[in-house]
Amino acid sequence: MSETSICDMTALQMRAEIAAGHLGAREVVQAHLARIERWNPAINAIVTLDAEGALRQAAQADEAQAAGKPLGLLHGLPVAHKDSFLTAGMRTTYGSPVFRDFVPTRDSVVVERQRAAGAITLGKTNMPEFGAGSHTFNTVFGATRNPYDRSRSAGGSSGGAAAALAARMLPLADGTDMGGSLRNPAGFCNVVGLRPSPGRVPNLPSAASYGTLTVAGPMARTVSDAALMLAALAGADARDPLTIEQDPRRFLDPLERDFGGVRVAFTLNWGGLPVEPAVTQVLQAQLPIFEQLGCALEEACPDFGDADAAFHALRAQQFAIAQGDTVRNHRDRVKQTVIWNTELGWSQPAERLVRAERERTALFERMHAFMQRHEFVIGPVSQVAPFNVDLEYPLEIDNMPMMNYIDWMRSGYYISLTGHPAISVPCGFTADGLPVGLQIVGRHRDEWGVLQMAYAFEQATRFWQRAPVL
Amino acid sequence: MSETSICDMTALQMRAEIAAGHLGAREVVQAHLARIERWNPAINAIVTLDAEGALRQAAQADEAQAAGKPLGLLHGLPVAHKDSFLTAGMRTTYGSPVFRDFVPTRDSVVVERQRAAGAITLGKTNMPEFGAGSHTFNTVFGATRNPYDRSRSAGGSSGGAAAALAARMLPLADGTDMGGSLRNPAGFCNVVGLRPSPGRVPNLPSAASYGTLTVAGPMARTVSDAALMLAALAGADARDPLTIEQDPRRFLDPLERDFGGVRVAFTLNWGGLPVEPAVTQVLQAQLPIFEQLGCALEEACPDFGDADAAFHALRAQQFAIAQGDTVRNHRDRVKQTVIWNTELGWSQPAERLVRAERERTALFERMHAFMQRHEFVIGPVSQVAPFNVDLEYPLEIDNMPMMNYIDWMRSGYYISLTGHPAISVPCGFTADGLPVGLQIVGRHRDEWGVLQMAYAFEQATRFWQRAPVL
Repeated sequence: MSETSICDMTALQMRAEIAAGHLGAREVVQAHLARIERWNPAINAIVTLDAEGALRQAAQADEAQAAGKPLGLLHGLPVAHKDSFLTAGMRTTYGSPVFRDFVPTRDSVVVERQRAAGAITLGKTNMPEFGAGSHTFNTVFGATRNPYDRSRSAGGSSGGAAAALAARMLPLADGTDMGGSLRNPAGFCNVVGLRPSPGRVPNLPSAASYGTLTVAGPMARTVSDAALMLAALAGADARDPLTIEQDPRRFLDPLERDFGGVRVAFTLNWGGLPVEPAVTQVLQAQLPIFEQLGCALEEACPDFGDADAAFHALRAQQFAIAQGDTVRNHRDRVKQTVIWNTELGWSQPAERLVRAERERTALFERMHAFMQRHEFVIGPVSQVAPFNVDLEYPLEIDNMPMMNYIDWMRSGYYISLTGHPAISVPCGFTADGLPVGLQIVGRHRDEWGVLQMAYAFEQATRFWQRAPVL
Repeated sequence: MSETSICDMTALQMRAEIAAGHLGAREVVQAHLARIERWNPAINAIVTLDAEGALRQAAQADEAQAAGKPLGLLHGLPVAHKDSFLTAGMRTTYGSPVFRDFVPTRDSVVVERQRAAGAITLGKTNMPEFGAGSHTFNTVFGATRNPYDRSRSAGGSSGGAAAALAARMLPLADGTDMGGSLRNPAGFCNVVGLRPSPGRVPNLPSAASYGTLTVAGPMARTVSDAALMLAALAGADARDPLTIEQDPRRFLDPLERDFGGVRVAFTLNWGGLPVEPAVTQVLQAQLPIFEQLGCALEEACPDFGDADAAFHALRAQQFAIAQGDTVRNHRDRVKQTVIWNTELGWSQPAERLVRAERERTALFERMHAFMQRHEFVIGPVSQVAPFNVDLEYPLEIDNMPMMNYIDWMRSGYYISLTGHPAISVPCGFTADGLPVGLQIVGRHRDEWGVLQMAYAFEQATRFWQRAPVL
């Protein structure tokens, strides 16, 4: 089979062809390595590649299959891991010059689970330094470019993953999301990113196991593939104190559902945030889909109240917990925004954290009440279309200046703060051909509902099939 | 049936007699009201009593049963709620003069669930002001006295509940535990108190839904009764962001288990804490029970590291979240220790919270590793036997001065910090006839194992049967 015909398959198709004996893991890996060799130099999505190791794993996978061994959920599928996940024996840089040569001796649980499910690790995907910001650039590897327009950002922080998926260099990928880092790059790159509930996917090891802002999750080109990846990643782990005790196999059930009468709230701006008109237009054009699906669509938005102050305080604390040692010991080699967040985490008044905790409890209550009236709330993933790759962040949106590097991420971090599951699913393209993502937020812990809704939208629109021209 | 023969029954016996038609809810409630009338003046455990309302509920319960309606888990059983749980239409003071006349319009979820299970609310149980400290006294109602020695403390903060259970004024009660408040009073009063995992019992409404230190849980005279109450209280509630998604009916399964070969660690002092020799003697005398049960008993203790600093920082933050408004608006009517904790919560360096979050993640990891080697760890509930009721707190333990009012609660709060489930089960009496509790800590989220182990110990010892002489 040709490189293109293999790399254009969904993960589920690939997995089925392998299981049926029509394709070998080696063939699949070779096709993706060829694709990476050809397209990655222009995109810079995969920053560490272990072709030899991948081919060895693929050979073992084929042998195991030939010997009649049971096949894991991800048997033979090539993956690459965000460069913040530990990979035993493979460089893990966090996009930081401090960790340029760091080679861990163990895997993160997310990596462990993919390996256990039979996936084949090709390498690591690019991210901003310590995941700070929703635009993927760092001084170790440079910026990741958007496959749909290489002069544009691929988003972030799981930007390498999104760009690699879009460019058909990988069928599945992983990522993390504190303020939108699974959703924003998916939106920018016309792929799918699901932010699960905290505790759904064990994010271990972690310096802050009780934190609920940062979660790990799946990325893919289609909703069904994201569900497959979630089934492999999710499930309780006793090393995570807040782990969710639910069987992840339910994410393998068919995603079809009748949405007749289901109440869906839509918001074009998440309660008054500035949004680029081009994004709004793309979104508006797709709203009728929900009516065609039979949903009771109503314009409404949860009250996010003082979410900005709460998120800033909790984010700063998380940075101080996770990056404090690095900032303390290697300050001259850490980017300014990370120093800013970390020092704020050390120095902010404790009373601000008290208010933040009160506010997020109140916000959760308001969100719960809102989600009793509406099963879903939908709106833009990002307030902007993919911007100039050379910017550090968009300096303004719809004529509103952005005050700092996370100011433009509110449409992402408001939802992070509530902890409700949210997906980014392809919603179409601007007149300039830039991808726009639709964000679908579901009820507390209802990843399943979110996947079903996204699947229905995807089936009706099929924007994911429009591959980038490289 | 006589008052004594009714009030001496376990909750399970009472429930069975009611279900079989041998006893009516009215009869049960009347017996307990008579007991309260006679014994409560000396103990001061029940601080709000609604005899009329209780008899009305009991009449309704009997009518429902006569009409063939299905009976709830707690059908006809009298309960009283800790005075920090909201009770619609019934005074809820938190032991504070500020809330002396506060009558809520809604129930806490813990109360809701007991009502839904058919329990009959007699009133409210005493607690220290805002639950601060493990000794039950306040300026609204005064101190609760230990039924085994009225010159001694009943412990706290769920002290009214424990004393009421011991004096056979209630068969079941509820409570909360931040630093030992379900376990310490149970130990002091020869009853059972189970601190569940955070998220097991929804503690709603709450100003701090993301907090994991304070949990709600069951109290009873026997382990089986505590399991019954847990089955009624536990189960997911979507209004709690960290709720545990597991079926609570498993707590109704028989508690018998073969403990042959089960590895149990024991510690006499939780890693070097001062413990009153009288407590140690009682504990040591019962250790052979575990060998008789077939356990592989080994002296070992988790490394609690910097748990003190972490607990102080997180506790202060919790006070500021929950009591900040009260301290701000009614400072002159709030006790000094609550002001101290709350102001610390406002003013402590944010870096201290960063260290606390790092430390409790590290502690959880160490505890997880320890609990892989040992399925349980057992030790004293409290470092002291019930002390003089007129003290604010024990001023020294084994010649070691206590620096503040929570210094003597470490044996409780170390476990609160790890979040592992822990039970206090009667362990015997000092030479002075004062009760001592055994603390059994189980694996993460394994309340079931903790109940089973406590049940085996209880069956072998039966200290709970020794009622106080009043």
